[in-house]
Amino acid sequence: MNGPSSFSVPADSAEHVAQAQAPVRLPLAVTLGDPAGIGPETIAMAFRDHPQRMAGCFVVGDVAVMRRAAAVIGGHLPVVTIGQPADACADLPPRLMPVLAVHPGAETDPARAPLPAFGVVDARAGRMAADAVVWAARAVLRGEAAGMVTAPLHKAALSAAGVAFPGHTEMLQAEAARALGLPVEQVPVRMMLANEELRTVLVSIHVSLRQAIDAVSRDQVLETLRITHAALNRWPEIAAQGGPRLAVAGLNPHAGEDGLFGREEIDHIAPAVEAAVREGIQAFGPYPPDTVFMKARRPEGAIRGTYDAVIAMYHDQGLIPVKYLGVEHGVNVTLGLPLVRTSPDHGTAFDIAGQGVASPASLLQAVKMARQLCGTPVV
Amino acid sequence: MNGPSSFSVPADSAEHVAQAQAPVRLPLAVTLGDPAGIGPETIAMAFRDHPQRMAGCFVVGDVAVMRRAAAVIGGHLPVVTIGQPADACADLPPRLMPVLAVHPGAETDPARAPLPAFGVVDARAGRMAADAVVWAARAVLRGEAAGMVTAPLHKAALSAAGVAFPGHTEMLQAEAARALGLPVEQVPVRMMLANEELRTVLVSIHVSLRQAIDAVSRDQVLETLRITHAALNRWPEIAAQGGPRLAVAGLNPHAGEDGLFGREEIDHIAPAVEAAVREGIQAFGPYPPDTVFMKARRPEGAIRGTYDAVIAMYHDQGLIPVKYLGVEHGVNVTLGLPLVRTSPDHGTAFDIAGQGVASPASLLQAVKMARQLCGTPVV
Repeated sequence: MNGPSSFSVPADSAEHVAQAQAPVRLPLAVTLGDPAGIGPETIAMAFRDHPQRMAGCFVVGDVAVMRRAAAVIGGHLPVVTIGQPADACADLPPRLMPVLAVHPGAETDPARAPLPAFGVVDARAGRMAADAVVWAARAVLRGEAAGMVTAPLHKAALSAAGVAFPGHTEMLQAEAARALGLPVEQVPVRMMLANEELRTVLVSIHVSLRQAIDAVSRDQVLETLRITHAALNRWPEIAAQGGPRLAVAGLNPHAGEDGLFGREEIDHIAPAVEAAVREGIQAFGPYPPDTVFMKARRPEGAIRGTYDAVIAMYHDQGLIPVKYLGVEHGVNVTLGLPLVRTSPDHGTAFDIAGQGVASPASLLQAVKMARQLCGTPVV
Repeated sequence: MNGPSSFSVPADSAEHVAQAQAPVRLPLAVTLGDPAGIGPETIAMAFRDHPQRMAGCFVVGDVAVMRRAAAVIGGHLPVVTIGQPADACADLPPRLMPVLAVHPGAETDPARAPLPAFGVVDARAGRMAADAVVWAARAVLRGEAAGMVTAPLHKAALSAAGVAFPGHTEMLQAEAARALGLPVEQVPVRMMLANEELRTVLVSIHVSLRQAIDAVSRDQVLETLRITHAALNRWPEIAAQGGPRLAVAGLNPHAGEDGLFGREEIDHIAPAVEAAVREGIQAFGPYPPDTVFMKARRPEGAIRGTYDAVIAMYHDQGLIPVKYLGVEHGVNVTLGLPLVRTSPDHGTAFDIAGQGVASPASLLQAVKMARQLCGTPVV
């Protein structure tokens, strides 16, 4: 499993990369998020101020919502409508925002209601946001886009719109399962949170700490290692340099100190690490949780460090160190899907939506991470 | 409880401080730690290279061990023997290391065995280390020293020496209880870990995560708040500016999201915060654990930030963010005792002991923190 993946190339042959991969020119889809939140305006800011980073990206959503976002942030940002993802790869001039309308013609429909207001839960906003996610996921699964970056949804708006899923992850799992012809249970996913110096992947997320401890089983930890290995091994720089190295955190203080403060390390985590190693995964640990993250820190901006990611046993164990440097730097990545999906690590921020004051920093990081994880050049 | 303590002074009156507190000139005791570890040599380095920071400090321990440490690090560091703590406050020239011998005359005893070797568990080393801690604690409790900074012990060496306590905390609790005439159970303590931008105080430490969850009761959280408030309120800069502000972390992801992911916040933590507020303690929360530490970060080196400390519900929740910046910056503080005790946040490091390569950074931070917590000028 550690051999070069189909995307990997010799690390010293940049020219070879360009030649070998030149035929693949796929754009990156950016879903607009809840129109009542800060998603659309952060996307518009990214296109206006960071044309190079956003080259080859296109927005999936509602054209009028994105025009309003361009107006909110001010400055000069023409909005252009494209008919298919490939058009985003055409030689568009920079500082344009290409939008693919999920419901073409909606913008010019004379019977259309006014746009959802900022900062208010609105079923129509929830519907627009959900439709964009589904559209983008299908485009990626059809091979028309390299991956997707998702601006934040609002749980209550989704629910008001009658969307059967609480968030992105579940929506994307369902789309992936459909595409693969599998039941959803057979498309296990894991959340990765990353910034410029640390990546952590969580065994469990939104459950109580007691339930999270119960979820620390050999199988769940092993599955997390497999999913993380496969996802990071698609990253050319990592695959070409021997594949990902994964540190595994313990659950208890000092990783249990040989069973003195808990036995999960002995009974579940160490056996999972051993099983992963037998499968060819470079897994190490379990290590004391209080120092493993510090040891996995990379020099800022470096792709590789001593470890490429830390497997965290529960939500806060993994999120505290990544968020400590500031949420504006965090990127949320769903691993395990047959598509690349990243998102900024913030919510809809209804309290400041429509003011043009939100930061696009996390969205820009999410775009960068999506390009890296795609393992294929994005324009 | 939030009024200025007896140590507090107007923040803008440095001269007034010097005048008002000038009569109190108490030295700071530094215990040598396990002679087979890096404690003695980090102390020697601190005296050699940071004379200003170490002014008014004296080593409690064995003179021959400290002479060996001075030789290990090289350079010029005369070792002088003092007969009582007050001698450390005399106008000693800088770059001297004053040592108070716990067993006077041991150095010149012709029947004395060679010093314990570096990097090896040794009952004699454990005994020397423990005797220094007890001596220093009694000196502080008698009012002869302002506080104590403890270099690292080795648990196995203590045990080999027949010491009935596993570490500093238990030893100091016993000494404090004796001095106060109370049973040990009535001297509750809490561990604080601090660096230049964050302080966290732990509800529990060396128990399994499952047991740590059980320890999150209203009474335990309230006790932690009381102990932290009292300790930080002795810090003149904090007391003079309205007293400590304490953020309380939740236990579950998102602090339970209104009971959706666990009820400890509703059943135990919020009631503890409310009870503390009724007692006049400025307690806030419970807050989502993944962002509370980030919000409590101070500008580097500042004494105060939005919060003065975060109350963490278990060992790793509090230690991950403090250690993330590097263990060389961490200081361990025992709160709740009737004496100030700080220590560097590293162990004996037997693997590098005697080589003169260990860093004194954490020890120097511990000295700084002890001076601040003493609330009384240290020379």
